[in-house]
Amino acid sequence: MTASTPDEFRAQLLASGLLAATEEDGIYALSETFDHLVLAFDALVDRHGTALGATRWRFPPIQSRKGFERTGFLTSFPHLAGSVHVFTGGDREHAELLHRLDSGDDWSRQLSTAPSVLCSACCQPLYPMVSGRLPAEGLLVDLSGWCFRHEPSLDPRRMQAFRQHEVVYFGNPEGSRLHLERSLAYASDLLTSLGLAIEDVVTNDPFFGRIGSMLTESMLNAELKHELVAAVASESASTALFSANEHRDHFSSAFGIQQSDGTLADTACAGFGLERVVLALLDCHGLDPARWPASIRQMLGI
Amino acid sequence: MTASTPDEFRAQLLASGLLAATEEDGIYALSETFDHLVLAFDALVDRHGTALGATRWRFPPIQSRKGFERTGFLTSFPHLAGSVHVFTGGDREHAELLHRLDSGDDWSRQLSTAPSVLCSACCQPLYPMVSGRLPAEGLLVDLSGWCFRHEPSLDPRRMQAFRQHEVVYFGNPEGSRLHLERSLAYASDLLTSLGLAIEDVVTNDPFFGRIGSMLTESMLNAELKHELVAAVASESASTALFSANEHRDHFSSAFGIQQSDGTLADTACAGFGLERVVLALLDCHGLDPARWPASIRQMLGI
Repeated sequence: MTASTPDEFRAQLLASGLLAATEEDGIYALSETFDHLVLAFDALVDRHGTALGATRWRFPPIQSRKGFERTGFLTSFPHLAGSVHVFTGGDREHAELLHRLDSGDDWSRQLSTAPSVLCSACCQPLYPMVSGRLPAEGLLVDLSGWCFRHEPSLDPRRMQAFRQHEVVYFGNPEGSRLHLERSLAYASDLLTSLGLAIEDVVTNDPFFGRIGSMLTESMLNAELKHELVAAVASESASTALFSANEHRDHFSSAFGIQQSDGTLADTACAGFGLERVVLALLDCHGLDPARWPASIRQMLGI
Repeated sequence: MTASTPDEFRAQLLASGLLAATEEDGIYALSETFDHLVLAFDALVDRHGTALGATRWRFPPIQSRKGFERTGFLTSFPHLAGSVHVFTGGDREHAELLHRLDSGDDWSRQLSTAPSVLCSACCQPLYPMVSGRLPAEGLLVDLSGWCFRHEPSLDPRRMQAFRQHEVVYFGNPEGSRLHLERSLAYASDLLTSLGLAIEDVVTNDPFFGRIGSMLTESMLNAELKHELVAAVASESASTALFSANEHRDHFSSAFGIQQSDGTLADTACAGFGLERVVLALLDCHGLDPARWPASIRQMLGI
């Protein structure tokens, strides 16, 4: 292990030039080395999507506000969402905006709500696209893209902007469970073969507030979420590298997604946090990827 | 040419499955084929950055609000910027947010300004990082990343989220002009060898409002901006694929960037709009990249 605390790990990542801090906690400039590792792992996971015969879609970091509003994200995670606001005024409002900016006032009061929000998970923009009836065999979709979570922190394991690579299943409850079992087995093998010691834990999403306490309990009871966690810059295995989520009919009821027989579909998503995996590898094998074990370098093609 | 109007081009791109529309104009789901073309062209341009010996940094799609406020973007392009807003309330405010959401009201009134904004150009987050004295030989930085511009449109050539690949120079006025000349020559050769008919035009940024009219005139007079434009889904060569921009001391004065002798530095950036280049190639060579000329497929490694 390279670091024993997140603070120490952050100091090492910045001193080595792998990451550079910006004026906002949790937003980093990524060095060539760090970004190459993210892309190398992404390419590895991409081959799994190909092997599964998954359809590939890629989304930009923003999605339609209308679709987002129906995902239920604002009920469970209002504190993590990012809403986009834009200037739609004329010359007079522009002068007022610049006056506020110059005075150090909040110029964003001159803005209006845009019809877009930041993607909170790379699968969020997919559900509005898949309405209607599914093929009899269901549907697998491979996704990779940028996510935003508003949780400013000095802990490098908690970035505000990061990438996920997921495979989402649409079909029936059995197919859903099978997808998650297979995905967990694949991810567990992959992370282990990269030298990481991981644990499979039943857990819950970081739900917000009073409503969240109830959601947490019911989610834990139903074992709807598994995570593969590792000890990264810490003694405890507490950093989630992979997450497998059974949604039941949460998204299908919101977006009218039906099985081929017309009944509501089940959906499930399973995916990696790419920056998190890279951080785990750097903590485990050291900050210089050129000195990582040859077998791991070979697997990543670096 | 595949299409004679942007409307026709959009219809073809959607019908072929290269892009999928979302609920918001100008935000698309990108097919595997489309995204692979973007990444293939990005990789080609990346090799140029390596040949130049440029330092590579990669930024996420958001940047610090503090840094952004000093770029001057809000003076020139308030209408294109994207501000991020987040929920920081408690249970009571959450209940009110959900009530507004359910009633179809504007729930964003419950949000506060986040310390981040969307990146408007992939070089914007770089300038706050490069304060202080430059090395004697100046500095070249290679960047590639997602940008946001609030300009909802059905024209596929005008996306709200798209990627840029740029090389930014920091140094003296001569170095700045040399960087732009070389970059224009490289980009012109590259686009031509990909079969595109391009023109080098002196132009101006899409400045906003009354202040903008004055800026436009002075920019055109000083020939601070060149674009390489092509005819994409149109008779006229009006789609910018590459842009070369002389900033003089605009960014260096805002961020305290000095030459090695302590005088204010000049900066200049030159880069491609990646989705735009792919659209130009699709319009020029047809919607099925498997049928593109072998030489072009080979250049792109597809």
